Amino acid sequence: MIRSYFINLESHNAQLPIELAAVIKQLAFNPQGLIPVITQDASSKAVLMLAWMNKDALSQTLATKRMTYWSRSRNELWVKGETSGHTQSLVSMSFDCDGDAILCQVNQVGAACHTGRTDCFYLNVDIENKQVNVSTHTTC
Amino acid sequence: MIRSYFINLESHNAQLPIELAAVIKQLAFNPQGLIPVITQDASSKAVLMLAWMNKDALSQTLATKRMTYWSRSRNELWVKGETSGHTQSLVSMSFDCDGDAILCQVNQVGAACHTGRTDCFYLNVDIENKQVNVSTHTTC
Repeated sequence: MIRSYFINLESHNAQLPIELAAVIKQLAFNPQGLIPVITQDASSKAVLMLAWMNKDALSQTLATKRMTYWSRSRNELWVKGETSGHTQSLVSMSFDCDGDAILCQVNQVGAACHTGRTDCFYLNVDIENKQVNVSTHTTC
Repeated sequence: MIRSYFINLESHNAQLPIELAAVIKQLAFNPQGLIPVITQDASSKAVLMLAWMNKDALSQTLATKRMTYWSRSRNELWVKGETSGHTQSLVSMSFDCDGDAILCQVNQVGAACHTGRTDCFYLNVDIENKQVNVSTHTTC
């Protein structure tokens, strides 16, 4: 991974904004051209899902403020909620310290998960009993 | 991706726990044997970081309740905070609907980010002005 760009940013002057396009150019997209995106509900702070973006999905999300991912199963841009109506509007976006993950806070319409659950993380590990409980409704 | 196992779980009876080992066996580790892990502060709900686990890191995390990742830069198991003291103790763990991401809630000692910041997502996009602001302190 090319890390030097982000190592330099660690001590960058907080008063000097950087051109967004310059940072995006340095993001660590994987060999498939994708970067993981954590989507968090802006009000409840629940983590709704983890999905992937390519550069086009990222550009489209920023331009439209509608969360747009890359569907790895369908191999196409995926405007979240386009068929279900369960859209996500972008509230804020951040990159992490080594430029290989994106965090987006969103306003979620309806359920984030295709199963109708509030979020996708409904397979809850019972650590003591070494079991998994399937929630019908999430606890967030 | 082998999806049928997790598609079946969508309608699994919430009263019937599943053996943890059986679910872990079906998780969608990538060709490098890794799965992305979102680490969230159990009390503030801030997303602290995104990192990766292999099966050994996952087993060790569950056994010790100390967050243990796979360091892709050092190619070794990475017990978070082993050198810095900034450990993360596991509070809860969930898998997502298609078994290709893990969400962990933790109690974080000190800073999650190696830069000393509370969390790793400190490169904040100013969407309107197409700029990135580098936070000295995170806002969560």
